[in-house]
Amino acid sequence: MQKNIIFDLLNNDDGQIPAIKASKEFIQLNPDYSLILVGDETIIKKEFENHVPKQIRIVHQPNLVQKSASLRDVLRQDSSMLTAFNLLKEDKASAILSSGDSGSYVSLATLKLPRLNNVARPAFMPIVPTITNNNILLLDCGANIDAKPEYFVDWARIALSYFPLLTKNSSKKIKIGLLNIGTEDYKGTIFLKEANKLLKESFPFEYVGFIEPNDAINNKVDIVLSDGFHGNIFLKTLESSFLGISGLLKKMIYKNIKTKIGGLLLKNELKKFKCRYDYRNIGGAFIIGLNKIVVKAHGISDTKAFLGALNQIKNAIEQNIIDNLNKEE
Amino acid sequence: MQKNIIFDLLNNDDGQIPAIKASKEFIQLNPDYSLILVGDETIIKKEFENHVPKQIRIVHQPNLVQKSASLRDVLRQDSSMLTAFNLLKEDKASAILSSGDSGSYVSLATLKLPRLNNVARPAFMPIVPTITNNNILLLDCGANIDAKPEYFVDWARIALSYFPLLTKNSSKKIKIGLLNIGTEDYKGTIFLKEANKLLKESFPFEYVGFIEPNDAINNKVDIVLSDGFHGNIFLKTLESSFLGISGLLKKMIYKNIKTKIGGLLLKNELKKFKCRYDYRNIGGAFIIGLNKIVVKAHGISDTKAFLGALNQIKNAIEQNIIDNLNKEE
Repeated sequence: MQKNIIFDLLNNDDGQIPAIKASKEFIQLNPDYSLILVGDETIIKKEFENHVPKQIRIVHQPNLVQKSASLRDVLRQDSSMLTAFNLLKEDKASAILSSGDSGSYVSLATLKLPRLNNVARPAFMPIVPTITNNNILLLDCGANIDAKPEYFVDWARIALSYFPLLTKNSSKKIKIGLLNIGTEDYKGTIFLKEANKLLKESFPFEYVGFIEPNDAINNKVDIVLSDGFHGNIFLKTLESSFLGISGLLKKMIYKNIKTKIGGLLLKNELKKFKCRYDYRNIGGAFIIGLNKIVVKAHGISDTKAFLGALNQIKNAIEQNIIDNLNKEE
Repeated sequence: MQKNIIFDLLNNDDGQIPAIKASKEFIQLNPDYSLILVGDETIIKKEFENHVPKQIRIVHQPNLVQKSASLRDVLRQDSSMLTAFNLLKEDKASAILSSGDSGSYVSLATLKLPRLNNVARPAFMPIVPTITNNNILLLDCGANIDAKPEYFVDWARIALSYFPLLTKNSSKKIKIGLLNIGTEDYKGTIFLKEANKLLKESFPFEYVGFIEPNDAINNKVDIVLSDGFHGNIFLKTLESSFLGISGLLKKMIYKNIKTKIGGLLLKNELKKFKCRYDYRNIGGAFIIGLNKIVVKAHGISDTKAFLGALNQIKNAIEQNIIDNLNKEE
């Protein structure tokens, strides 16, 4: 695979500067890679103090993609995200990275890029922290509102390939579960029961059956399969709970002098806790099932987060992941 | 409404003693009420030291209901839960309370009890803590895997009647939201869009539109409508996150002498936090839409939790809730 990445720099939180800084650092550490930066040329050049390295190509497009109900609107208006996908479609790179609107990103990726061989539908796959030291992969998390049982088999196969790349945990036996409202085979919708059967046949060694949110959060499995709706509800509830509790802890500590001292003594541990569950530190979410590496960084990413996402892409390129997946049955 | 309650004492966590203690206390505080206790007669009598007050009637049935895939199995085997519902069906009481298996409870309630006038389907409605001081009502949370848009209108109407009873917050303007993967009207399934439209027409003042998990957790609404599957995923994720984080905090504090002192200084606050999000303290979940008051207590309820559930039932009886709901359009 080509060692180049298209990077849409624009997002709602005005993170163009951190995105440029991450690009600069990435190129310094990886001189064999090249980047195509899509964004505001003036800002990019200024950040490089007019010494843009030869591995970086700038494509000027200062318009941010607008959140929209229809793909038609996204296609009609010039935006850095649209330009980035058009460049990728022309096969100018192996991968794309953006921190822009998720909905538009999934729509454009699905429309502009061919699918992998033998994959019916792409899926949105974030890396999710658990209460252990390990992260898990969750898919689908919003690309498809409706899924068919056979989609899960494709997704499980792809997630199994990505898992060692994204978690540095290549030695362990990977476990896959299907998110449901109970662990018994008789629980859930007809659709889930069919998927459960199909997955048992397809992954007799990896698939452990239905799981509940509790099993995902406690890292009983490594890969959580779900339709886009349930996956999205699960992830957003998890994220909001952690954020909410972080806020409560802060209030608790600021209550009086005694609690403030208590907080001070626990400061290092609380910082580690906050850092672990800060979604900016987890890196990008992958849109899998397509013929290119497609990564979505968080809208509030800082330089470190963008650099993390670029390194995830690098790992995937080095492992030749797309070619290998295309070779599989 | 009759001031009597049928109480199925048996559950998986062997909480018969706390259930009996709660009954004893409830009757002492409310001499105008009577209870029918279904459980092991020997244990009940022993707990009362053979002086069973006249307001208490004992029905001996020492078999615990078994978790089962089919309602047929639940109906075939003698159990305290089945006996309790048969007594309720004979109109022996206004309400039923149990901490046994949820699935069997919902099935038996649906089968044995007539529905309220103008209500298509019952729903499971727990009281859920938020990160503010207020609790919210969530429905449906598992009684129906598939819902129809019109169910939500019935459920919203019933929840609006229950809300002041359960939250002691009768003065405020109650807000209702429909759980979705985005707040924009164009988000979600066709089914949710239809429900959104219907709710806007039916509750122009209370209904605020689609909400995300974040809005529920942060108490932006008071009543969260959802189909049984999404509601269940939401609640279980929330519960597991809080439990998981409580565990992490404990580990954090026990790490070394410094953190232990920090934990000691924060002890009162942490205790309050744990108590607030301990589901045992929230009271019972209601199965609404039926012609009786049906309450499910947590399987790990202690005396305080059972007493809380009995008091919730008392409030509902005093407010004549079933008769009032039957009078509504």
